[in-house]
Amino acid sequence: MEKFMIIGERIHCISPAIKKAISEKDPAPILQRAKEQIDAGATYIDVNIGPAEKNGEEIMKWAVQLIQSECNNIPLVLDTANKKAIEAGISVYNRSFGKPIVNSADAGGRIDNINLAAANDAMVIALCADEGIPKDNEERMNYAQLMIERGLEAGMDVEDMIFDPLFLVVKGMQDQIPELFDGIRMLSDMGLKTTGGLSNISNGAPKALRPIIDAYTMAMCIQCGLTSAIINPCDKQLMEAIRTCEMLLGATLYADSYLEL
Amino acid sequence: MEKFMIIGERIHCISPAIKKAISEKDPAPILQRAKEQIDAGATYIDVNIGPAEKNGEEIMKWAVQLIQSECNNIPLVLDTANKKAIEAGISVYNRSFGKPIVNSADAGGRIDNINLAAANDAMVIALCADEGIPKDNEERMNYAQLMIERGLEAGMDVEDMIFDPLFLVVKGMQDQIPELFDGIRMLSDMGLKTTGGLSNISNGAPKALRPIIDAYTMAMCIQCGLTSAIINPCDKQLMEAIRTCEMLLGATLYADSYLEL
Repeated sequence: MEKFMIIGERIHCISPAIKKAISEKDPAPILQRAKEQIDAGATYIDVNIGPAEKNGEEIMKWAVQLIQSECNNIPLVLDTANKKAIEAGISVYNRSFGKPIVNSADAGGRIDNINLAAANDAMVIALCADEGIPKDNEERMNYAQLMIERGLEAGMDVEDMIFDPLFLVVKGMQDQIPELFDGIRMLSDMGLKTTGGLSNISNGAPKALRPIIDAYTMAMCIQCGLTSAIINPCDKQLMEAIRTCEMLLGATLYADSYLEL
Repeated sequence: MEKFMIIGERIHCISPAIKKAISEKDPAPILQRAKEQIDAGATYIDVNIGPAEKNGEEIMKWAVQLIQSECNNIPLVLDTANKKAIEAGISVYNRSFGKPIVNSADAGGRIDNINLAAANDAMVIALCADEGIPKDNEERMNYAQLMIERGLEAGMDVEDMIFDPLFLVVKGMQDQIPELFDGIRMLSDMGLKTTGGLSNISNGAPKALRPIIDAYTMAMCIQCGLTSAIINPCDKQLMEAIRTCEMLLGATLYADSYLEL
């Protein structure tokens, strides 16, 4: 396998500290979370500024320039429902270490975000869903196919599309998890890149259990071919899972210190 | 998936305490390890009495009767190069909770152990190897095929054969590990049962790393369809891996307490 792509999820306006920092244009909390995640192994940072209906363009430009200028042009995932804000972010984005990623398109009302990504030479996270949750892999694969066609029509390289199978919650949807694993394998067997909010699997589980469920879900997904995830890289057990699976599948060389590398 | 079959490996004459207990016919150390493993979740106990060239029959009978009488007829894996000792063990074995398992046959000099198992209505662990280590999955699958033919000729049900793909050491044979995973999947796709000494993967790695490597190897192997392993069930992280993978694949129902069940 190639090295796993770790997208840090912790700059998210659902966090009160981040929401406040964004509204006050206070760099410190945002830079702190960016640096913590990079130190922990994130290779992309997700920047979620929420719906950002007011001042979205200005906010995204500010956040992109702030993080990239202070963090060696770390590549970013631009995460908002405001399309103009995404385009504004891309207009000031530094591509030295990777294209910007649009988060996200789907096979329903947000399919135009594929065109937005194509028009801006960006990558896109393509959610294998329409409005609700895909009910099986036939739906997942139909949605993926629809989005691939849209991307190709827009002149996009399929390499720039990262498919999100939609990670379900085990507590309540346990019977659908084996199908989810199979779906990842089907996408992977087609040579497609995959990502998603993996920790959703353990939503609602006791706090002490969540890192355990997440870590073994990660190992099983990587075995199925998952190439990336949007996660908290400061979760030590989850990162151990990734580093160990990378080592077992030959993405990194074994050394007694492989967990620290 | 069905529940994972956990074979406890800790009654092994490589341990000085067990070796001494066997030679002195001292029940206490053997029963202690049997009970510890059963409490930790073992569903079969491996009884390795070594080559047992002298008194092998008497030793195996004693060990089988001792463990089964004191541990609610827990099913056993009879593990020795001495065939007469295996047959002697089977002659006193209680089948209430499962057939005896012969450990092991291979596709080379030990292939007759398949006939021994068939003649005694026992199961057999069938090592996908000849003399050395299988060099790739073509060899693994050829060995498996050879052993299946032998079993069928002997009137054995393939359900009673458990194929061991031979777990390699990552430190030194790292480049062959992805092929090992694929081999497990190939055996699994044929509907075959699989087992093996999984912890061999981390042989020679620092002591603190071994449970981590073993646990994620386990998760990846279960995703490939591994149905059993010969392990130390007192390794907490390894058991967490098994319990979590069973839950994710629907072998057990999710409950907040699933790790304790």
